[in-house]
Amino acid sequence: MSIVVVGSIAFDSIATPSGRVENILGGAATYFSLAASYFTEVRVVAVVGEDFSAENEKVLTNRKIDIRGIDHAQGKTFRWGGQYLDNLNEAKTNFTELNVFEKFQPHIPEAYQDSQFLFLANIQPSLQAAVRLEMEGVRLTGGDTMNYWIKDFRGELLETLRLVNILLINDGETKMLAGDTSLPRAAKKVLSMGPQALVVKHGEYGATIFFREGAFGVGSHPFRAPALPLEEVKDPTGAGDSFAGGFMGYLASEGEINREVLKRALFYGGVMGSFAVERFGTERLQNLTREDIDGRFQVFRELTHLE
Amino acid sequence: MSIVVVGSIAFDSIATPSGRVENILGGAATYFSLAASYFTEVRVVAVVGEDFSAENEKVLTNRKIDIRGIDHAQGKTFRWGGQYLDNLNEAKTNFTELNVFEKFQPHIPEAYQDSQFLFLANIQPSLQAAVRLEMEGVRLTGGDTMNYWIKDFRGELLETLRLVNILLINDGETKMLAGDTSLPRAAKKVLSMGPQALVVKHGEYGATIFFREGAFGVGSHPFRAPALPLEEVKDPTGAGDSFAGGFMGYLASEGEINREVLKRALFYGGVMGSFAVERFGTERLQNLTREDIDGRFQVFRELTHLE
Repeated sequence: MSIVVVGSIAFDSIATPSGRVENILGGAATYFSLAASYFTEVRVVAVVGEDFSAENEKVLTNRKIDIRGIDHAQGKTFRWGGQYLDNLNEAKTNFTELNVFEKFQPHIPEAYQDSQFLFLANIQPSLQAAVRLEMEGVRLTGGDTMNYWIKDFRGELLETLRLVNILLINDGETKMLAGDTSLPRAAKKVLSMGPQALVVKHGEYGATIFFREGAFGVGSHPFRAPALPLEEVKDPTGAGDSFAGGFMGYLASEGEINREVLKRALFYGGVMGSFAVERFGTERLQNLTREDIDGRFQVFRELTHLE
Repeated sequence: MSIVVVGSIAFDSIATPSGRVENILGGAATYFSLAASYFTEVRVVAVVGEDFSAENEKVLTNRKIDIRGIDHAQGKTFRWGGQYLDNLNEAKTNFTELNVFEKFQPHIPEAYQDSQFLFLANIQPSLQAAVRLEMEGVRLTGGDTMNYWIKDFRGELLETLRLVNILLINDGETKMLAGDTSLPRAAKKVLSMGPQALVVKHGEYGATIFFREGAFGVGSHPFRAPALPLEEVKDPTGAGDSFAGGFMGYLASEGEINREVLKRALFYGGVMGSFAVERFGTERLQNLTREDIDGRFQVFRELTHLE
């Protein structure tokens, strides 16, 4: 089944211990779409500027991603500059130029309306809510957010969380949103805000999914998937969005969502995140095969499985 | 098979968000011994002062721990005071009184010499080496260390590492010892210093075991065990030593060490660490049953196992 993603398309300038790149294609919607495209049909809702080239577009269309929901606006595409020179786990932002993204009003093509899966990447919470409400046929909505919205747009965010079935955020965001320093307690509080499941991304330590009692199955036992110990992380940018793409893409490909499917989705999320960071930008996500992905899935499985 | 542990016995004064205790029995050798005692016969080498009571001793002997290697010296037992008020993952030391521990010279009873397993808890590296060299019949040695020895006793520590088969340290210690910010790369460097396997303890994210190529089995694929998401960590003190006790105790109980045994040992380490932090001090480790332990082992297993 197809999935719609709404989020940013950007040009990123990135410095890491492995090197430095300027104005390469990035953005949450881009990473998400590429990662999810190995599992299901992906449809993007985003905005780009006049500097978005045919070559940029081809990165998406080569993966058969539906780009009818990408608005071409006057001006420049969103640009972000960041570095991970001291700490690969946390980006230091050098600059943010919102450009056309500042006035982004998501337009959902009529043709997208039969999608049953939706992912609200990290954008203004009230835009997330508007998209969700416009997509009447959606059965399962995943969402992301960040510290900025948690701190300064809490009211809007809480409204949006009631519309999200599965929230995917990191440890710090979970604790900030809940106002609790214990992750399992914070997770429980976040689940009381609306989502039936919460995926907490731990970076190099993998991810944990917490369930509201009885959601998608029996009980409320969490489940954890590892991350791959990689000797060289070339560029961590987009790891979380690629994780979300693998996770949601796999769910959409299965259709029926239960605990076992969600567990495997958590592993596929880790798999796609691990590919993303092996090269700068989206390079590694452009030319994978399903065999590459399932091979790495087995590596992840062996990483934590007892005989 | 029996295991000998050399390390500290202490009286701890601890403050955490859950409360505050004064002068309770602690120390690496204590936590290790109690945790390991559920798997195998444990023999302690340590030093205590005149304030070490019959009641304190009973905590160990109730678990059938062999205390013939505990020296009773004139003066007071080692005391440590610490707090975890802001961050449960890292202790802030309030005070350290070495007392009788300052001149600790481990004496190994003749009766301990038939032990084939040894754990060198976190003490001065040259004392660790001396104990290892005195125990001629030992087949497998585990060891711990800390930032202080890594920084200021590097030469001695490197000598000791050549005598250690399995080193158990945390992320920060691994990176500091190797001088590398990438954990998998740092692990590889540490393995080139002597140990055949390295267990990196990630606190609330579990632990990863890295293998030197071909050690204990085929290849060098790492393996990861989770930690239990606990809503309330009452007191993190001793979690790492309890982990080591579960890990090494299980190995000693199996005798034959291969990759599958090491993987299960990693899970048992996590299990014992998770019990330790549920109560202040050693309270929870004093009254477990093997059924409690194996029940939690299954919970850990389900936490990461796909069908």
